[in-house]
Amino acid sequence: MTPDLRGSAVTGFALHAPERGKVEAIPETVIEIDDLGAIATVHRPGDPGHAAAQRAALTLPAGTILLPGLVDLHIHAPQYPQLGTALDLPLEEWLENYTFPLEARYADTEFADRVYRALVADLLACGTTTAVYYATIHDAATCRLADICIEAGQRAFVGRVAMDHPEMCPDHYRDASAEAAIAGTRAVIDHIRAHPGNPGARVRPMITPRFIPSCTDELLAGLGELARETGVAVQTHASEGDWEHAHVLARHGMTGTASLDRFGLLPPGSVIAHGCHMSAEDMTLLARREAAVAHCPWSNAYFGGAVFPLRRALGLGVRVGLGSDISGGPLASLLDTARLALAAARMLEAGTDAGLPPGERSRHGAARIDAVTAFFLATAGGGEALGLPVGRFAPGQRFDALLVDPAAPQGMLRLWEPPEATDPARLLERLLHGTARANIAASFVDGRRVAPVAA
Amino acid sequence: MTPDLRGSAVTGFALHAPERGKVEAIPETVIEIDDLGAIATVHRPGDPGHAAAQRAALTLPAGTILLPGLVDLHIHAPQYPQLGTALDLPLEEWLENYTFPLEARYADTEFADRVYRALVADLLACGTTTAVYYATIHDAATCRLADICIEAGQRAFVGRVAMDHPEMCPDHYRDASAEAAIAGTRAVIDHIRAHPGNPGARVRPMITPRFIPSCTDELLAGLGELARETGVAVQTHASEGDWEHAHVLARHGMTGTASLDRFGLLPPGSVIAHGCHMSAEDMTLLARREAAVAHCPWSNAYFGGAVFPLRRALGLGVRVGLGSDISGGPLASLLDTARLALAAARMLEAGTDAGLPPGERSRHGAARIDAVTAFFLATAGGGEALGLPVGRFAPGQRFDALLVDPAAPQGMLRLWEPPEATDPARLLERLLHGTARANIAASFVDGRRVAPVAA
Repeated sequence: MTPDLRGSAVTGFALHAPERGKVEAIPETVIEIDDLGAIATVHRPGDPGHAAAQRAALTLPAGTILLPGLVDLHIHAPQYPQLGTALDLPLEEWLENYTFPLEARYADTEFADRVYRALVADLLACGTTTAVYYATIHDAATCRLADICIEAGQRAFVGRVAMDHPEMCPDHYRDASAEAAIAGTRAVIDHIRAHPGNPGARVRPMITPRFIPSCTDELLAGLGELARETGVAVQTHASEGDWEHAHVLARHGMTGTASLDRFGLLPPGSVIAHGCHMSAEDMTLLARREAAVAHCPWSNAYFGGAVFPLRRALGLGVRVGLGSDISGGPLASLLDTARLALAAARMLEAGTDAGLPPGERSRHGAARIDAVTAFFLATAGGGEALGLPVGRFAPGQRFDALLVDPAAPQGMLRLWEPPEATDPARLLERLLHGTARANIAASFVDGRRVAPVAA
Repeated sequence: MTPDLRGSAVTGFALHAPERGKVEAIPETVIEIDDLGAIATVHRPGDPGHAAAQRAALTLPAGTILLPGLVDLHIHAPQYPQLGTALDLPLEEWLENYTFPLEARYADTEFADRVYRALVADLLACGTTTAVYYATIHDAATCRLADICIEAGQRAFVGRVAMDHPEMCPDHYRDASAEAAIAGTRAVIDHIRAHPGNPGARVRPMITPRFIPSCTDELLAGLGELARETGVAVQTHASEGDWEHAHVLARHGMTGTASLDRFGLLPPGSVIAHGCHMSAEDMTLLARREAAVAHCPWSNAYFGGAVFPLRRALGLGVRVGLGSDISGGPLASLLDTARLALAAARMLEAGTDAGLPPGERSRHGAARIDAVTAFFLATAGGGEALGLPVGRFAPGQRFDALLVDPAAPQGMLRLWEPPEATDPARLLERLLHGTARANIAASFVDGRRVAPVAA
């Protein structure tokens, strides 16, 4: 597979979920990619010009399937070395004994370089073409993460974490003051925006108050002001678990979402992780602000105390995408997240405790989503959350895509009939569950192959 | 890696969970395997004879980790072609519109041959060294599945499905009578027991009433009699979902577990899938009968309406192992099952509906398990359920094992320090979450390499 499709065209079998609940298979599509990596044309068989375009196009290997790239809305990059460990602990102990000591190590930029290179390479190989990263409180290491994304060709948002609350953060891992956190955030924004290798702002900064408990009101206000001044969106956590939800209610007399809003921390394109305990009012506010929720079902199982009411949020117009939440979630593949999004929605609808009568296990009502919706959230839904033209095969979208090889020897897929002969929704459901890293023959961002890396 | 370790010894880093909640790392162990594939000796560094044994042993590749083979207690082999599809449907529709028509196709033994060969090969590559299979109502295709397991070297239990209830089974896929189902079951038992390539009964029959709703009382009684006569254990489903649980209560005036018992269908080593709705009395009865539960958290999310109370069952002395429940569960790797067993237990403990106060989301109480316990269930716990000496590195156990290569290029593991330097419980937790098919460099059963297959 050629490493650069810019200025050329490919033909093959493409499958995407261009709208929520809608799937489209396009056999023998021809996708023309412009010189900057945007999709110029999507020809379907029978369209005028299809046959001529197909003759000029590069033919994708027989049996492969082109999918849109995956958008992971919530990743703690520095936590990658502890992926899949210590999830038996309560959140406070997990933070104090594992996570904060690990994050503190990123004062060492060379350590950061080693971890971040591995993480970005692994995520690209798993099909995550757009990543939204928390880094740490270290300006240099955060800039290094942005540099690595730029170099590797990943589409990314990178946030320098701000956390200054002296009673809620350990002495060894805390911003010295609100001013210091704001100055550091500004420095990273300036670095990313001025980076000479970042045309089209494929890598962007994000303002990143860790979460309300770890920030003073002075810091929250200052970051809100910085968001207004710079036009940079915000990422943070809110209403994740009972403890933090109650803490914010007690401290601010309102929910986390409402409090973030009054500090100016919900500009369009912002991403709030979790939201398990959000009210309908919170959701309506988010929808009005054009801010999104990163739904992270794996970490919610460990730290959330409840399942995010995804279907309700979608019904209220909230933009929602999926987050692996490395390493609050134990799995790096966003498809693993999509798999649990489906199962967790069923467990929210049905409840879990057979000791209660069926109608009392959960009073939530209909919560199930289908696989097409889960895949939409992992692709175009995530793109919409970020205000990015990714996740669909359509003119004007960036060519961010995966080439799935169902026959890869170490993969987890078995197809028993040609993709063309399969109901598209069932095919997408099967790919969502079965696609392993080994099945991803190539990942593309802006028309450039980003995995595997050319030798 | 040599394809046959019988009569030789290996040395390397081994990790296992020999008892529930207990993990042991054995760096530089030397495992001596006898001529029939049993473990003769496990030398630890410092033991008398360790140094001499190590000099004579085959050294496993640097960085690799030897784990016990995985025991999957519940697999519907004929459903493999629909893995990961149609899970949005209620159980009845899923059975009627997808599953029964698919299973009916196994009247064609050549179709069965193609599917079963692929499934057995894939499961061995995923580390499932012991598999408990439902087949279909077809004697020839069921015998073929047993033949394929024997040929491929997988340890397996194979059951010819019995289902004769005219009102509950479709006309096109049903045993003609109780007698026919019993005669077919007997024929498959005889075939497997008499198979000349099955020394040591590595592949064994299992009596397999589909579940109570699809069987007449005459069939249930006849299969119980057959179990008594032949000494063959039983596999079936019980207390999976609200519908089936209530159906049995209404029809038999007792729970599924109690009803199976009065028909003689709980001999030692039997496996009851699911059990989400089992009472404490059911569990106590199972423990007394030395029958086991196959915990299948993925399919329970779709069809169970509640989470199996695993920790309670363990506390009551029930033998429990894990089941992928292909294809009621969408994922073939038993490690995926172990991952959700951990998360689902948390969701049972906490509940899922944030609309209820924390104490009312679930009244179940402590339900969480740790990763070491989940891994135990996937290995030695599954072995105990079946009465098999597998799942531990100890003299007298069969040498059923996986060689994990954390550095496999298409795998999902990243270790940041040598295994020897890592806390064994944390290492096991990480391997449970991160080990992908591509990380499994080799699988062994009875000391023979069964994957990858020798060229």
